[in-house]
Amino acid sequence: MAYEPPSLSRTSDFPLSEQLAQLFGSRIEAGLMAAGTRLPSIRQCADRYGVSPHTVVSAYDQLLAQGLVRSERNRGFFVRERTALTTAALRPAAVPAPAAFPNDIGSLIRTMFPAGMHNQVKDSMASSRPYPASGVLPASWLDEGLLVKALRRAVVQDTTSSGAIYGTAQGDPLLRDMLARHFDALGVAAPPAQIITTSGATHALDVVARTLLQPGDSVLVDSPGWSVEFARLTRMGMRLLTVPRSPHGVDIETLAQLAATHRPKAYSTVSVLHNPTGHSLNLTQAHQVLQLAEQYDFFIVEDDTYAAFAPAYSPRYAALDGLKRTFYLTGFAKIIAPGWRVGCIAAPADWIPELLDTKLIAGLNTVTPTERALSLCLQQGWLRRHTEAVTSRLDAARNRTVQLALRHGAEFAAPPAGLFGWVETGVDTEQLAQRLLDHGWLIAPGHLFYPERCSSTRMRLNFAAGQDAAFWRAFERETQLLRTEAGV
Amino acid sequence: MAYEPPSLSRTSDFPLSEQLAQLFGSRIEAGLMAAGTRLPSIRQCADRYGVSPHTVVSAYDQLLAQGLVRSERNRGFFVRERTALTTAALRPAAVPAPAAFPNDIGSLIRTMFPAGMHNQVKDSMASSRPYPASGVLPASWLDEGLLVKALRRAVVQDTTSSGAIYGTAQGDPLLRDMLARHFDALGVAAPPAQIITTSGATHALDVVARTLLQPGDSVLVDSPGWSVEFARLTRMGMRLLTVPRSPHGVDIETLAQLAATHRPKAYSTVSVLHNPTGHSLNLTQAHQVLQLAEQYDFFIVEDDTYAAFAPAYSPRYAALDGLKRTFYLTGFAKIIAPGWRVGCIAAPADWIPELLDTKLIAGLNTVTPTERALSLCLQQGWLRRHTEAVTSRLDAARNRTVQLALRHGAEFAAPPAGLFGWVETGVDTEQLAQRLLDHGWLIAPGHLFYPERCSSTRMRLNFAAGQDAAFWRAFERETQLLRTEAGV
Repeated sequence: MAYEPPSLSRTSDFPLSEQLAQLFGSRIEAGLMAAGTRLPSIRQCADRYGVSPHTVVSAYDQLLAQGLVRSERNRGFFVRERTALTTAALRPAAVPAPAAFPNDIGSLIRTMFPAGMHNQVKDSMASSRPYPASGVLPASWLDEGLLVKALRRAVVQDTTSSGAIYGTAQGDPLLRDMLARHFDALGVAAPPAQIITTSGATHALDVVARTLLQPGDSVLVDSPGWSVEFARLTRMGMRLLTVPRSPHGVDIETLAQLAATHRPKAYSTVSVLHNPTGHSLNLTQAHQVLQLAEQYDFFIVEDDTYAAFAPAYSPRYAALDGLKRTFYLTGFAKIIAPGWRVGCIAAPADWIPELLDTKLIAGLNTVTPTERALSLCLQQGWLRRHTEAVTSRLDAARNRTVQLALRHGAEFAAPPAGLFGWVETGVDTEQLAQRLLDHGWLIAPGHLFYPERCSSTRMRLNFAAGQDAAFWRAFERETQLLRTEAGV
Repeated sequence: MAYEPPSLSRTSDFPLSEQLAQLFGSRIEAGLMAAGTRLPSIRQCADRYGVSPHTVVSAYDQLLAQGLVRSERNRGFFVRERTALTTAALRPAAVPAPAAFPNDIGSLIRTMFPAGMHNQVKDSMASSRPYPASGVLPASWLDEGLLVKALRRAVVQDTTSSGAIYGTAQGDPLLRDMLARHFDALGVAAPPAQIITTSGATHALDVVARTLLQPGDSVLVDSPGWSVEFARLTRMGMRLLTVPRSPHGVDIETLAQLAATHRPKAYSTVSVLHNPTGHSLNLTQAHQVLQLAEQYDFFIVEDDTYAAFAPAYSPRYAALDGLKRTFYLTGFAKIIAPGWRVGCIAAPADWIPELLDTKLIAGLNTVTPTERALSLCLQQGWLRRHTEAVTSRLDAARNRTVQLALRHGAEFAAPPAGLFGWVETGVDTEQLAQRLLDHGWLIAPGHLFYPERCSSTRMRLNFAAGQDAAFWRAFERETQLLRTEAGV
């Protein structure tokens, strides 16, 4: 069985060269061919896709014109560096350059937005089927009725009070009340006065980082971890200190050494259902990390984005610490709708004025109608019922996806839990991702989850979006081919 | 006629000392007693408010306990520095400290949020009447029906497409289409691909600054101007170069000298209906500034927040420049509802990927339902009709307010236009603001609109919220008293 490249259509309205250019273009846009990657030679490519060398030359010329590749005399064509983020231009000049963050963050984020993704990967690639790289639940899992009901009722309520038309700096008071009760149930005691609403969890991370840190500060991060966080911190001029995170949890010894040597200002971490490993903090480690935080005087920035799917009684740093040195933040994108952008920060009381100033100067208040709608979802018990339904469905999906994965040669690098699985494929997942994209499947290769450039044989798998047997057949075929090719 | 301090209530449930502490507390919280301001001596205060020295001591003790004042042995009580923003702690360590931005920005912003404001100034001070310091239209001027209709229809439409549930990185496609048409009518040619939605104009300014600038860069700003912009840029480590802005417009000569000497990276300016002067750019100056921008290679960051109230055919930099070196941004807080937070950036095409990266890493996407609702407002002509009604009403309010102001001894430092007037009072407006707040009137003293600490005899007046004759009587009485006291 040989590698089957996607066939180009000879009956299409689009010339073959354009189809070929689009094929490579979408791989590059999706971040699956990193900057500096060499394109196949004209002859190789012509052979692989069964077209004339002239067609390949024309396709490569189109990619050149689009600025996606550059040519080097006598050496061939190479994927161009993106100008954004990968350049050092935006780093504070007087601060020693932090470890470069090489990933094309745009491509990672695009995988989170199905609609945006489909724009990028063009209609030929797009489909409405769920794709395993996704960072969110499939649209069909979200409760449209809930969204409509909550927002309609919020709008009617909202416009009867001027506070709702204008918004308030700290966030909708009803929402902060409801969040305080919601957190109380998780063991986190955060009075409404210690809660600030944000435009989602990512905005919450940004507000906290801009308040606590200054360029040149060292920050501990989980590795693997969430690349958007790596990108933001790097771009703000921080030095990232990577703390290995495995199925066994946080590597406490490394954390202690890094803390002693570099005196970091903060540890930014997803405590429960860590992305991508699925690991959840246990009490022992929580206590140890907090002791180190006390000893070396750093803050904990605790990102609880996946709270909705978390096992009951999962401990949080914020619960143990009582919001003394923990900044606890969460959002509702995963369970309500990514487009709503409602999140919040629960913080030590004496940091609230400064966090509020950061929020204000960077964007004034947040969106009133969606905040009020979320408070109704919490108040009326709608969110609880919706969450129960989704987690049951996710449990079933996880079981099915894990069985499919195991049957088709995948292994789990960490016990399956929550929304994401951390899958060992045995082959380089950057290559695998390119191959699978040719067949219309977008996966999230492991290298996207590390702050330093590396290759990885792992991938992050969305359990809700990984139930298609056709995907797993393609996965098995392509991993076997890659193994065979590597063996030759 | 002597200064009449607000009377403390002897029948209140609250002790006199508590009422007195609250009086000073609200002045300090509202930013009307700057850090370092000395409180009246115990005896002075006791005389002024007709209470015993013991009551004053108790009130000052309460302010001490609240952290609002500090005491200096044998010297008295002083308003404390706020820890946030006024400290240098958050500035990049390795970058030379920029000119300190001394204003209590929190207090300025609080004046923008009636609800938040009322929380701060306590119920005794709060009232539902419009107040002259306000940065927005009175709630009764906004069209509740429009808000409800647009958002309800948006919700129904939204949930039928997955793009709407998830949101897209660049912003709702329908909204970007509608904005492109909307801008076209202003002479600004910005195709949808060159538009990025933001969570309001302030967020747009933040995204642009984080993309274009790095700590240590020099940035031209209008003076007087918008303090939130001064605060954000200062905090990001920029050096502010102040360009005088008067009724005659931009001081081109100073701008040219500053540009030649300091080589700024950008000029951040409100071109039309400048806040606080009300000045609108003319073609001659627009051309001159753009020529300087070309000569000295700086960007124009054009904030068109007040576009809804702008005279027809007001020129914009973005129109002349064709988005070559102009980043044009606007929002709809002033005309739709501050709580909606919908704004956008129209930018040079080659900067779009980097702006998008900044938006993404700092908060992912923006809020889908409100974006879709705004696009319906634009598409269906609802916004145009609403804007026409509001501008007619604002014209009438401005006429009435100007007449009242002139009758009560105020003069206009700039021709009245748009939402704000720049009023010459003849007395120090920081003192005037304290006096008027005692009577329940919040004004915006001039010093809040300068990047450097200064005193000012001007105040910004909201024409829509300045029509109360009782305010103007209080204004006239207190300005006369201050003049008399100054003369003694």
